[in-house]
Amino acid sequence: MSKKTIGVGDVPERYRGLGGRGLTSVMINTEVPPKCDPLGPENKLIIAPGLLSGTSLVNASRISIGAKRPLTGGIKESNAGGTVAAALGRLGITSIIVEGQAQEGDLSILRIDKEGGASLIPAREYKGMRTYQFVGKILDTYGKKSSVLCIGPAGEYRMPLASIQSSDVDGHPCRAAARGGLGAVMGAKGLKAVVVDQGGNNPDPIADPEAFNEAAKDLAKIIKEEFVNVTMMAPLGTAGLVAPVNSMGAFPSYNARKGMLDGWEKISREAMAELIKKRGGNTTHMGCTQCVVHCSNIFVDEQGNYVTGSLEYETIWSMGGMTGIVDLDTIAQLDFLCDDIGLDTMSTGVAIAVAMDAGYKKFGDGKAAIEMVEEAGKGTAFGRILGNGPAAIGKHFNNTRVPVVKKQSVAAYDPRAMLGQGVTFSTTPMGADHTAGNLVGLYLAQQLDPLKPEGQVEASRFLQTAMAAFDVTGLCFMASVALLTPEAGEVFMKVLNAKLGTQFGPDDFPGAMGIRVLKAEKEANRKAGFTKEDDRLPRFYYEEPLPPHNTVFSITDEEIDSTFDF
Amino acid sequence: MSKKTIGVGDVPERYRGLGGRGLTSVMINTEVPPKCDPLGPENKLIIAPGLLSGTSLVNASRISIGAKRPLTGGIKESNAGGTVAAALGRLGITSIIVEGQAQEGDLSILRIDKEGGASLIPAREYKGMRTYQFVGKILDTYGKKSSVLCIGPAGEYRMPLASIQSSDVDGHPCRAAARGGLGAVMGAKGLKAVVVDQGGNNPDPIADPEAFNEAAKDLAKIIKEEFVNVTMMAPLGTAGLVAPVNSMGAFPSYNARKGMLDGWEKISREAMAELIKKRGGNTTHMGCTQCVVHCSNIFVDEQGNYVTGSLEYETIWSMGGMTGIVDLDTIAQLDFLCDDIGLDTMSTGVAIAVAMDAGYKKFGDGKAAIEMVEEAGKGTAFGRILGNGPAAIGKHFNNTRVPVVKKQSVAAYDPRAMLGQGVTFSTTPMGADHTAGNLVGLYLAQQLDPLKPEGQVEASRFLQTAMAAFDVTGLCFMASVALLTPEAGEVFMKVLNAKLGTQFGPDDFPGAMGIRVLKAEKEANRKAGFTKEDDRLPRFYYEEPLPPHNTVFSITDEEIDSTFDF
Repeated sequence: MSKKTIGVGDVPERYRGLGGRGLTSVMINTEVPPKCDPLGPENKLIIAPGLLSGTSLVNASRISIGAKRPLTGGIKESNAGGTVAAALGRLGITSIIVEGQAQEGDLSILRIDKEGGASLIPAREYKGMRTYQFVGKILDTYGKKSSVLCIGPAGEYRMPLASIQSSDVDGHPCRAAARGGLGAVMGAKGLKAVVVDQGGNNPDPIADPEAFNEAAKDLAKIIKEEFVNVTMMAPLGTAGLVAPVNSMGAFPSYNARKGMLDGWEKISREAMAELIKKRGGNTTHMGCTQCVVHCSNIFVDEQGNYVTGSLEYETIWSMGGMTGIVDLDTIAQLDFLCDDIGLDTMSTGVAIAVAMDAGYKKFGDGKAAIEMVEEAGKGTAFGRILGNGPAAIGKHFNNTRVPVVKKQSVAAYDPRAMLGQGVTFSTTPMGADHTAGNLVGLYLAQQLDPLKPEGQVEASRFLQTAMAAFDVTGLCFMASVALLTPEAGEVFMKVLNAKLGTQFGPDDFPGAMGIRVLKAEKEANRKAGFTKEDDRLPRFYYEEPLPPHNTVFSITDEEIDSTFDF
Repeated sequence: MSKKTIGVGDVPERYRGLGGRGLTSVMINTEVPPKCDPLGPENKLIIAPGLLSGTSLVNASRISIGAKRPLTGGIKESNAGGTVAAALGRLGITSIIVEGQAQEGDLSILRIDKEGGASLIPAREYKGMRTYQFVGKILDTYGKKSSVLCIGPAGEYRMPLASIQSSDVDGHPCRAAARGGLGAVMGAKGLKAVVVDQGGNNPDPIADPEAFNEAAKDLAKIIKEEFVNVTMMAPLGTAGLVAPVNSMGAFPSYNARKGMLDGWEKISREAMAELIKKRGGNTTHMGCTQCVVHCSNIFVDEQGNYVTGSLEYETIWSMGGMTGIVDLDTIAQLDFLCDDIGLDTMSTGVAIAVAMDAGYKKFGDGKAAIEMVEEAGKGTAFGRILGNGPAAIGKHFNNTRVPVVKKQSVAAYDPRAMLGQGVTFSTTPMGADHTAGNLVGLYLAQQLDPLKPEGQVEASRFLQTAMAAFDVTGLCFMASVALLTPEAGEVFMKVLNAKLGTQFGPDDFPGAMGIRVLKAEKEANRKAGFTKEDDRLPRFYYEEPLPPHNTVFSITDEEIDSTFDF
């Protein structure tokens, strides 16, 4: 970006066989100076589709985006759905590496056409434009069969909560690589968007195409069935978690002062399904390329007009549970606003909750929440503080009850009522994160008691390792959790080996691959100054019992520190 | 502070023989969890007079205050003049250790009477009060012979630029332990002030009183003479540096874009002396207990009314040079405002300069600078960002030209034109700091070429070690630099040995003592996550030549990293 040049090259030997999070994390650990300014020219923004993206396999269209994160200076990978991973895969593009830094005030779009030709296009006319309007103009210019990754005003302001938004199959920028402030890195580089033509037809070769197609077909069937049978998330996907997690007393409410939300039923899957159906929206929407589970949705207003897409459990929680706003219309509007401004819905909701908890506004005040997000969108002084995240808002209001690890907000499972989630939040190199190793499936299936310390570390280790490996492939979370049984894993191994020409067994994947990725990430954090003391939940989780179970987080530091004993 | 209790005890064996910075740094490295929240209950605020404070020795009334610093989480010691160190020394108090944390909204004063009795007094009535009004009320209540350490609104807001102000011999809170945000630690603890009666008469015993008195008398003479002859700072103390440093092209101006300031002569010592004399102020004011050099001053307005006290070179630079405000009345007002609000004048001036450099206001706009400081005093959203320091302001305005190391602003010597100052700024565990090992005396005396790399690291190492040792004793900077010759050092050794009953030779002091202190500080930073990559100046010093010499900073990383090879 410093000289506005584009170079194309083969993947160096040392990075071969890596994709997605594996590629971004290993490359960042190898190439990015561990103490450099995340918003300076030395940081690299690495965009990598999964190893299987762009093949005929279903549900493999996650795009991994990595960099040193603005929120704390640790390593970050954040992945998003949509269509861009498949589009890049079809072009045989393993990764896009954005280096250097444009002149202050300059703004560009990276456009990749269907022959794989790449160009940097001046984009100052789009300066400050919100993402929906922006993507609309881009699709008008480059055609509807374009995939867009872009930032909104928050990324241009370089806010640590800035997301990179990803367009879905309808061309709505409602999917997001939201966490860790990667939008700020993109903004600091002077890159408004990456626009990729979906018509590419030059994917990397498949080692054994016949075996691949057969196994991929089997796998599609397994994923579809398991999604319905095992994850209990169909229809309406992740929103199905509101009722069970709340009934388990683990739904962090009112800035994590309670584990159950008054009026939770107004924001549950059932309430949302009823509302959407009545109004003519879509409760089983396909958001990503070649998806068979259709976990997404389209939320519409009373007139049936589009409000937002992909309104997920984590957003319903952050904007509803944490803030006490039990109104789906307000939550949907907040979700849209964050997508449009380019903000992480989770950390933004938590920052609002921390402000409310400090007495700045009342819990449940939806109008105040919308105003706060709008301030971030306008870049006012207060908006900038909000955009700096929950920890900054906590400092601003002298509120130490800030549910973050490595300055990133926790997700929608209270560690005091689901102990293993606290292990994952504490130890993942990513900052508190729900996709890094989510134990909720084990609790729902009653395979693990969420309130007993026994087995939590082991389960978190297993899931974190597995997710680190699946994040290399481009497979989505829904598909990955459906593949954790040995039988399903075997079919997946056939797919992977047929693609790569490898002889991987269960020790190699997810095991060895996940460990390799996690080790690179831990090392990057260590070199950036992180120690085991950073692998800790905030004090209040240890001291303040959570109703209704009135338990505190009780995994010892020694156990926490043993999570990555490999 | 959590339970509002006061405990009194003997100095544990492991801390014996330490005072001032030695005591605060070793204790923090030993006792404070390296990754704890600087504004949380686990941090400790340690207030320690020097080993010689409270004796009959002149110029030994520096108070060291230490804690984990809010600005970056590293270790911090900041020392101030005034009267409180001597007052504590006369009571035989080695240190005050403030632990825990009061309830939100609670505020107390620690009062120590002349018998050494200590009590915590409710102080909510003083909430938000600025320091001059506050100290006035305290002196009315407890008598003029009280020494006060206190915070202003900035400390109560827990701003990382918040200072702890120290009252001078006239009872003005114009001296400050300003750097690193220790005022925020005090505010977070819920402590508004420490008030110490000056009438104590129970100092720690002197091992050999006769030898002590004789050597102390000799030393007083040396200090007084050397101050006049060697430091070239009399009269009007540090302000004497404006002309020579500017003429050497090392006076960082306009946010360090130039090394010489247009109109520097309007803010020089000569201009200030003329103004003060004409108006009836004081150009050789005694600010600290038992001072013989009288480096301080009292700045008055046209009517002869007090504006501010102790208007020092570093403040004239930060508020004048960096901002281009070549008007002493405005600078004096800014100095007063910072003292009154409880802000570090240096980092605040630099933060203003970074904002101006980003185009927020014009260089030279004194009114805008005053408004910015007032915003910090009122705690507006913008004021909070300013109070977060130059790095935060840089992020806010997307300006990467931020002259900080470890987020603390540099001092009034540009590393490109005085290379050794860059070595000290880079490597001192304190964040860029001018008292940690200031080479300006060597340059002025033409003992070292400021533009040649040779010898800079060695000189910085020698001075940093010496200052770390002198900071243990309570001796002020002016006295310390007068004692760097072997002859003067010998007399000082007699004083120290007579006080402690030791047989220290030149290897023990400053050598071994300084190294012990620095090692503890480096270790504390290492445990907090700092690496050698944090011992670096910002990139622009390496890339942007500084007029008029048009040189860049040219000490290699390897040389920098060898500074503390002991």
